[in-house]
Amino acid sequence: MAFGWIEEQDRARREAGLVRVLRPRPASSSLLDLASNDYLGLARHPEVVEGAASAARTWGGGATGSRLVTGTTALHAELESELAGFCGFEAALVFSSGYAANLAAVTALAPHGSLVVSDAGNHASLIDGCRLARGTTQVVGHADPDAVRKALATHDGPAVAVSDTVFSVDGDAAPLAALADACRAYGAGLIVDDAHGLGVLGDGGRGAPQGAGLAGRDDVVATVTLSKSLGAQGGAVLGPARVVAHLVNAARTFIFDTGLAPAAAGAALAALRLLVREPERAARARAVAAELHERLTTAGLDAVRPDAAVVSVRAPSAEEAVRWAADCRAAGLSVGCFRPPSVPDGISRLRLTARGDLSREQIERAVRVIGETRP
Amino acid sequence: MAFGWIEEQDRARREAGLVRVLRPRPASSSLLDLASNDYLGLARHPEVVEGAASAARTWGGGATGSRLVTGTTALHAELESELAGFCGFEAALVFSSGYAANLAAVTALAPHGSLVVSDAGNHASLIDGCRLARGTTQVVGHADPDAVRKALATHDGPAVAVSDTVFSVDGDAAPLAALADACRAYGAGLIVDDAHGLGVLGDGGRGAPQGAGLAGRDDVVATVTLSKSLGAQGGAVLGPARVVAHLVNAARTFIFDTGLAPAAAGAALAALRLLVREPERAARARAVAAELHERLTTAGLDAVRPDAAVVSVRAPSAEEAVRWAADCRAAGLSVGCFRPPSVPDGISRLRLTARGDLSREQIERAVRVIGETRP
Ligand SMILES: Cc1ncc(COP(=O)(O)O)c(C=O)c1O
Ligand SMILES: Cc1ncc(COP(=O)(O)O)c(C=O)c1O
Repeated sequence: MAFGWIEEQDRARREAGLVRVLRPRPASSSLLDLASNDYLGLARHPEVVEGAASAARTWGGGATGSRLVTGTTALHAELESELAGFCGFEAALVFSSGYAANLAAVTALAPHGSLVVSDAGNHASLIDGCRLARGTTQVVGHADPDAVRKALATHDGPAVAVSDTVFSVDGDAAPLAALADACRAYGAGLIVDDAHGLGVLGDGGRGAPQGAGLAGRDDVVATVTLSKSLGAQGGAVLGPARVVAHLVNAARTFIFDTGLAPAAAGAALAALRLLVREPERAARARAVAAELHERLTTAGLDAVRPDAAVVSVRAPSAEEAVRWAADCRAAGLSVGCFRPPSVPDGISRLRLTARGDLSREQIERAVRVIGETRP
Repeated sequence: MAFGWIEEQDRARREAGLVRVLRPRPASSSLLDLASNDYLGLARHPEVVEGAASAARTWGGGATGSRLVTGTTALHAELESELAGFCGFEAALVFSSGYAANLAAVTALAPHGSLVVSDAGNHASLIDGCRLARGTTQVVGHADPDAVRKALATHDGPAVAVSDTVFSVDGDAAPLAALADACRAYGAGLIVDDAHGLGVLGDGGRGAPQGAGLAGRDDVVATVTLSKSLGAQGGAVLGPARVVAHLVNAARTFIFDTGLAPAAAGAALAALRLLVREPERAARARAVAAELHERLTTAGLDAVRPDAAVVSVRAPSAEEAVRWAADCRAAGLSVGCFRPPSVPDGISRLRLTARGDLSREQIERAVRVIGETRP
């Protein structure tokens, strides 16, 4: 029977305790949220909500076509110009998601005959980009610029190195400056995914590339998402204008995808303007992360020192991680729970978002609940 | 220099007259739009706009996380349930784009060792799904169920055939019933992309699978986009509940992508409810297409008989197509212009959207402008 093979995979998943089900959430809840990626707590900020609503009123419910046909509005152009300016890049190109932006950047910048050097801890969307690219991918050890150098040294022809700036599971930062040096030494390009850096790292949240002095360089391309710190949906590729123009002509997830909905563009633009006006929001998220980490460590938990606004807490097993997250939830705290196959290293953990708008009392409550429910 | 190879590609593109540039559009314009995919003219319908705005107010600017973490709201669940019900499928799963839905359906349903039989005219997102899938892809001639049979006959193990229901460039329909028969004969699954069928084909716009009597079958999976007839953004996979549950666990563009923004879900849901209440909208779009085709043909133009709401008009060359579309634009008419490499057969054409809300006068004006500017 068609799709009959699914039963077997399903059974295996059940036996391993790895079945995922969707849990629709209500519009308001008393749960304390440390699970989302709303790092600055902007998704429900009145100005962001009004940015979405007024864009829908002005432009309609959708972009109505590919960005190359009817899907580019003046709002998209405004967002691209302000985003590029904020992050310190020459140009920006907006996509319907961060996932699509990553597919675009890697595939369009890794032509036939090129080499892509990819960090073993990279996000699924970068990995899919490598798989789709015409170039050859070499996966190197996590956060290892020397391995990147070695890989680049073996290759003749165009090459790029690809890395998250902040790795989504453990929240650790990539060695950006060393990666950029390695790339420059070999004339290679560097593509960095700043999904978890924008709004948190760099001056006033300008992102990890800006923080590392790489923004605006002619050999550096960054991708960002509009769906985390900016509280909306969508993604963007930032880089030299000639690279962005190339993507307009070559990136399939740009050419063959409907433009980002105006409401999402409007929400992201409102969030960006808030960040420009209130640059302390980024530092606040980092301070909450540091405080969360310190309190968890003091409580004897195995938390990874955060480089941005993600705090990861190791669990002894996948089952214990699932049970732990469920107990937190029962006690009023929503936390992320990462386990195989979502974690490349097989280590299950709770993942906490150090939202910049958490109060001292909320941080204390979160740490108390996590401690009381520990395995 | 990093990315130096771009110059050469850029030069080749310039010489071939194939450089694409973005043209931001204003919020209101006197141009008559026959270029968008807003088939029912719903993107700016007050109820759709209010659906977007009120969802943003209730739920915020973004979904804040993966559908598996915080990104599933009661609104997403409502949209999934009503969409599945409308189209006649057991279950639905909403994605951030139709592109992501197609990547998900193909990759999750074509495991290692399986065969994917893919129509040569399929959309880029289905092709990328085939490239990403673990199974082996065999491309077969356009709209050729016998070729699908032959391909399936050679393979032992899980198999799927993959096809657009309405091909986006020429607007021709796939032989769905014959494809389903071929698949059933070999125990293969059938995945059909109804991006251009939903809202136009089937009873009251329930889509091509419903129209062909395939909706709800245990071996048929459909994908749709929320960005065309529904005037929003996003995509969905429709199928048996067990297939949808499998996607929740296996589809990377579901698991590792932020949920669709509430405003887009709200806009799509409002459009869907409009369609339920006013089923004549679908027939109207088909009637406009038939009328456009007839008038163009009468005027001596080489228009393809439309199976849905896309009317394609052949141009003698890529340069002539570009010039023709530009002249239409100068005369107040916005039309799509497809040329290599976006068209697999190398034939350039104008692409007209038979929006269901076009008036008789607008149709006449469009045909007059296209005729007067013909090559
Ligand atoms: C590192 C990283 N890159 C890209 C993405 C994809 O971005 P989006 O959800 O906007 O598609 C995510 C998460 O969703 C991510 O964590
Ligand atoms: C046939 C077809 N499938 C899928 C898509 C992708 O849908 P979306 O634009 O919602 O990502 C499109 C167009 O954009 C399309 O024409």
